[in-house]
Amino acid sequence: MLVLQSVTMASMERVLTGDVKSHGGSQVLVRGWLHKKRLLGGLNFIVVRDRAGLVQIVLQNEEEVEKLRGMQIGTILSVTGKVVEEPRAPGGAELHEPQVTVEVPVADESPIEIDKPLSHKPENLETLFDNRVVGLRNLKEQAIFKVQAEVKEGMRRYFRANDFMEFNSPKLLPGATEGGAEVFKLDYFGKDATLAQSAQFYKQIMVGVYERVFEINPTYRAEPSATTRHMTEFIHLDVEMGFVELEELMDVAGNMLRSVADDVWKNQEPQLNMWDATKPVVPGTIPRLTMAEIHELYTKATGTSTIGENDLRPDEERWICEHSGKNLGSDAVFVTDWPAKDAKFYHRVNEQKPEFAERFDLIFRGVEISTGSMREHRYDVLMKQLKEKAGGDPEHPGFKYYLQAFKYGMPPHGGFAMGLERVTEKMLGLANVKEATLFPRDINRLAP
Amino acid sequence: MLVLQSVTMASMERVLTGDVKSHGGSQVLVRGWLHKKRLLGGLNFIVVRDRAGLVQIVLQNEEEVEKLRGMQIGTILSVTGKVVEEPRAPGGAELHEPQVTVEVPVADESPIEIDKPLSHKPENLETLFDNRVVGLRNLKEQAIFKVQAEVKEGMRRYFRANDFMEFNSPKLLPGATEGGAEVFKLDYFGKDATLAQSAQFYKQIMVGVYERVFEINPTYRAEPSATTRHMTEFIHLDVEMGFVELEELMDVAGNMLRSVADDVWKNQEPQLNMWDATKPVVPGTIPRLTMAEIHELYTKATGTSTIGENDLRPDEERWICEHSGKNLGSDAVFVTDWPAKDAKFYHRVNEQKPEFAERFDLIFRGVEISTGSMREHRYDVLMKQLKEKAGGDPEHPGFKYYLQAFKYGMPPHGGFAMGLERVTEKMLGLANVKEATLFPRDINRLAP
Repeated sequence: MLVLQSVTMASMERVLTGDVKSHGGSQVLVRGWLHKKRLLGGLNFIVVRDRAGLVQIVLQNEEEVEKLRGMQIGTILSVTGKVVEEPRAPGGAELHEPQVTVEVPVADESPIEIDKPLSHKPENLETLFDNRVVGLRNLKEQAIFKVQAEVKEGMRRYFRANDFMEFNSPKLLPGATEGGAEVFKLDYFGKDATLAQSAQFYKQIMVGVYERVFEINPTYRAEPSATTRHMTEFIHLDVEMGFVELEELMDVAGNMLRSVADDVWKNQEPQLNMWDATKPVVPGTIPRLTMAEIHELYTKATGTSTIGENDLRPDEERWICEHSGKNLGSDAVFVTDWPAKDAKFYHRVNEQKPEFAERFDLIFRGVEISTGSMREHRYDVLMKQLKEKAGGDPEHPGFKYYLQAFKYGMPPHGGFAMGLERVTEKMLGLANVKEATLFPRDINRLAP
Repeated sequence: MLVLQSVTMASMERVLTGDVKSHGGSQVLVRGWLHKKRLLGGLNFIVVRDRAGLVQIVLQNEEEVEKLRGMQIGTILSVTGKVVEEPRAPGGAELHEPQVTVEVPVADESPIEIDKPLSHKPENLETLFDNRVVGLRNLKEQAIFKVQAEVKEGMRRYFRANDFMEFNSPKLLPGATEGGAEVFKLDYFGKDATLAQSAQFYKQIMVGVYERVFEINPTYRAEPSATTRHMTEFIHLDVEMGFVELEELMDVAGNMLRSVADDVWKNQEPQLNMWDATKPVVPGTIPRLTMAEIHELYTKATGTSTIGENDLRPDEERWICEHSGKNLGSDAVFVTDWPAKDAKFYHRVNEQKPEFAERFDLIFRGVEISTGSMREHRYDVLMKQLKEKAGGDPEHPGFKYYLQAFKYGMPPHGGFAMGLERVTEKMLGLANVKEATLFPRDINRLAP
């Protein structure tokens, strides 16, 4: 089956479906997956899919039609034919008088429809993910991950342009250091190891080396529950920069978000249209509100008092984004002035207002997509906070090397992190982060 | 210490060391790490490091010299001064009449020299890695990872230009599927999980979706021994493409290597010079030799017979690269015609020569940097090979979904993989892959 059967075909170069129209009037060879089949007797046609998209092929010759009898969607075909303009066909042209070669036949009917939009209703998600391998061949599913690749490339483009070094930190660590029980443990040649739940320590260490750094890498959380927001494995953008203060750090996070949205809307329009996605409004300066201000606004608007609470409720996150979209000209909001008592040991406390940590959350289209903060950069203060807040042993190999960076000089610095899947989800208007994940992992799902 | 003490300074914008020269005659503010200090009484000067490089500062005023007494390398400084051209200084200019502010003092002397090249002799590598956090502040160490970032970006640039989709596959898997015992196991909410030892199955699945795909992600091998070639965690480039045959696949791998070398030598010259790196010779078509041909050449040249062996010896790999460099105009060689009996179940057997698998190794500067092959794409043949070769259960969740891709149609396809660290090592002429790894992981090392 590997040998192309027609002499004409063997001597022809493959043309991608996206280029078919430009060969109007000529004979071309296309190769791809049987994507759709309508053999109705009167009007027979098939659609072939390749990496560039789709092409429609009109079958008149009964001999060609017969070759396709019993062939299921997914069958690998080579087709030669004459290019005829047809405004109603995908790509604006179709093949006539085709000669079809079945390269690889498919006997089984696909368990999931390839040709129509797949249901993303909450009750259908498990079916969607169970059939992911085949379901991704659906163009609308493909679109999600084309957008995701653009989001990732857009992030890198922004950071490269702003003098950030890209690096890779290890994900196999000698112990859980940031606190929290949500770590995966494994046996490492008889020693205990954990999977990194963040790149926090490494990106800070790297500030001591390159000043401005980022990585985009897998991150692991043994999240004990299956929600629309959480997964056990996800792709994390981790950013850290030296000689910065909180305001500038927020500028960088906001500028990056705007730059990514611009790139996505510039380069992925057909994919965005499939999802009816609307471009987010991200102004030059994203509004900054303190948590107390948001509690006050929310309480006033909804009658439900959140005043004095130490976090934002999910409903409050949604509300403040709507409020901001309507009244502040931004689909994103920075939340500042987080209680110092809930801060992590590496957070820097606000010197002027010691009840607050120098931290922000970035809320975008109703969901927190990023947390950032200034880090405590003074060795003695950091040691004190480590002992007081995290009960950490400075000699533990999980802390020891991190502390070295500070012992030998670290500038004022801060950073933030962002989940690639969550940003993709919000750009496209999806409801569950797993819809923006090729092969999601949660407490119940470890395959495909 | 966070408040800048001088009014002049507070109102000045920071200038990076790389831009100092362009401000000749003006007052500028630089901020960075104390990188070198010479307070000899007669000629006092310091060198400050920031993300752009170094700047030399000449101290005449005794008051300024006194501020630096007891300050160790790594101390964070702000310095204002007048820019004076000085061809012998780094960057071609230095600061005169400086006003120094100690932003963050460092009291301890660095455990490793920052200012001189660090020893990479085999017996010193453990010291190098133990002190990695501080040692990376050495500019020559930094250079390695600037080159690495360029290698990575060069790979992505090549694949984007050639229509490959970037994706992320999960690293948490439901079982070891590719055979071999070199997998890390972990408890996943009461189930057994393993860390991915390759992206093999996922990249093939993705051929069914996007036809041409790549990912650059961490990969895990529980390698039981510490060598100069192996690590337990490394960054893997994984490439897979549909509608391809072996020759074209080798062209893609070779073109990518050449393209990456061009990018690195175009964009990282100062870093390459620090390591006296010489640009590899990678011709338009890299020589292809069968394993038998190499055995014959090697046996003839060295008197040691390897004829009939089923693999290349490490010494043979080095020899064939030297031979190729001298006689074939290439620092890289493709080795073809690998024995079918040693092939993995997913390799395609050569139909014309069934004793061989359609596989290649790419040997570059004496070391195998990539293995590639055509994959068996016919569902029935693949099922047969899975049962015969790997003894695999097609219903195991580690195989089941992979097989789905084939059941519903896969074109002829193949791919290859390449270790980012190994390519970096060979570009720079390093001797151990760990030298090209920020924080190496092996059987003995899990920190920093």
